[in-house]
Amino acid sequence: MPEILFSAREGLWETYRAPLMRALEEVGIAARIVTETDAPGTVDYIIYAPNEQLRDFTPFTRCRAVLSLWAGVERIVTDRTLTQNLCRMVDPGLEEGMVEWVTGHVLRHHLGIDRHLRRRAPIWDPVVPPLARERRVAVLGLGALGRACALALAGLRFRVAGWARTERRIAGIDCHHGADGLRAVLETAEIVVLLLPLTAETENLMDAERLGWLPEGAVLINPGRGALLDEAALIAALDAGRLAHATLDVFRTEPLPQGHPFWTHPGVTVTPHIAAETRPGTAARVIAENIRRGEAGEPFLHLVDRARGY
Amino acid sequence: MPEILFSAREGLWETYRAPLMRALEEVGIAARIVTETDAPGTVDYIIYAPNEQLRDFTPFTRCRAVLSLWAGVERIVTDRTLTQNLCRMVDPGLEEGMVEWVTGHVLRHHLGIDRHLRRRAPIWDPVVPPLARERRVAVLGLGALGRACALALAGLRFRVAGWARTERRIAGIDCHHGADGLRAVLETAEIVVLLLPLTAETENLMDAERLGWLPEGAVLINPGRGALLDEAALIAALDAGRLAHATLDVFRTEPLPQGHPFWTHPGVTVTPHIAAETRPGTAARVIAENIRRGEAGEPFLHLVDRARGY
Repeated sequence: MPEILFSAREGLWETYRAPLMRALEEVGIAARIVTETDAPGTVDYIIYAPNEQLRDFTPFTRCRAVLSLWAGVERIVTDRTLTQNLCRMVDPGLEEGMVEWVTGHVLRHHLGIDRHLRRRAPIWDPVVPPLARERRVAVLGLGALGRACALALAGLRFRVAGWARTERRIAGIDCHHGADGLRAVLETAEIVVLLLPLTAETENLMDAERLGWLPEGAVLINPGRGALLDEAALIAALDAGRLAHATLDVFRTEPLPQGHPFWTHPGVTVTPHIAAETRPGTAARVIAENIRRGEAGEPFLHLVDRARGY
Repeated sequence: MPEILFSAREGLWETYRAPLMRALEEVGIAARIVTETDAPGTVDYIIYAPNEQLRDFTPFTRCRAVLSLWAGVERIVTDRTLTQNLCRMVDPGLEEGMVEWVTGHVLRHHLGIDRHLRRRAPIWDPVVPPLARERRVAVLGLGALGRACALALAGLRFRVAGWARTERRIAGIDCHHGADGLRAVLETAEIVVLLLPLTAETENLMDAERLGWLPEGAVLINPGRGALLDEAALIAALDAGRLAHATLDVFRTEPLPQGHPFWTHPGVTVTPHIAAETRPGTAARVIAENIRRGEAGEPFLHLVDRARGY
């Protein structure tokens, strides 16, 4: 019976316990799971997210794989004590969660739902919103997440334009790239979704100039990275009435500091970095499948290439 | 040349004139259209939405069909003077609008968006909602609108159960029917969408007993007909904390009267009958096609079954 060490920040075991038991049972693995150990030499697999307790992987001499709970492994890939196989998390639940959050907030703005939630007086004002087929949505960033969101929105009949640094082709999406492409996409977008990776090129991409390219009354949705936009320029555009609203899930500093103007600005909705999170239910299945593979002598999924770094 | 009487509330003719002319031309029908007549005996078709002027269909002795602009015909189906063929509106634009409204509000409740819109203090509480694949949604009524909504929700991976009076089969939807089926569907539904026609059988369908079948914390969404639910029983269930919320687009009396408790109840969201509006562009094509059929002696589309009531 393989021995599994679950080592992550406090509290995470409680959310993973039941999904992990179920997922192991589904693949026919009976295992002994511990959350700490005095005998590292008997551990077969480590389910891992960076924490204070486990920082030296040297004593785990029999460990066949370190199975990361995080998609990003940049904090452990350079660890010299970690010589075991290292697998990163590729969680279908994270992508699904992002698609749901983005689709929900695009529909919220498309339908004008806030108006009905904030109504103070009994006013019957049957203003029918346009159809999705008449609404232009732009998705900036066409990696796995951006692509999935663009396709889900197109499936609901929105007119979706996409932009990426380099050329992409996605059926049903009007794809643009490069500097000219960005301007063309922003100039017609009523709702813009930011799903770009954060790099030197994309930091502050949505600055005063680019925000100025958006049509009057546009809505900005950012579930990507906080530093993709210039916060002061965004607040200025909202205050000037040029942008109608910004719904933000990510910030330069998280948790968003108490005194930050986003918390109280009437044109800003803050969600606390919940658009995309590794989900115990789906992540546990990825872990269990890799343990099954380890026991069967089959190659691991999502094995990290140390030279490439991911 | 057939004579068509357009009879609806004031102002509607202006929005229908151009789309209707174009749609008739598209199907090759040259017709004379009037908005009032002194010679009812010469009218071949009546395009109709309930209004004060036309309430007695007896003098329209030559009329081959009354073509309703509304999907719901409960106000005219029992009219004893209306002995002509009666066709209800099945508008693809109306269907798209309904799918968008239902999908938007289901995602709103699924994601818990209201909590973020109503936040008063800067509290960073990253509670991640479950995935759609873990959320059970029930759609009551599997006609054109219910079916389209159920399929759109299943496309977003929600676990969708459907219920109709008679047996249906829809790929990807867990379909139930009859009295036992209703109980099975309601007992597991976290979010319930009412899209049934209003008949003697469905009036007050969601009464205290049926509301009691829903699990604790369920959400009710009604874009169907106001009289499908018992208002007092709904408010009692919300006040008792058994239901978490009700989002209502339709009401027994519209506009919803100023003093009605729904306007101020914290557990109720009122939208002013905007979920599904007939769209002149697409609806005019349905009307024109039925006039073409009438002229060609072909069976009408969407003919109402008087015994069934829709």
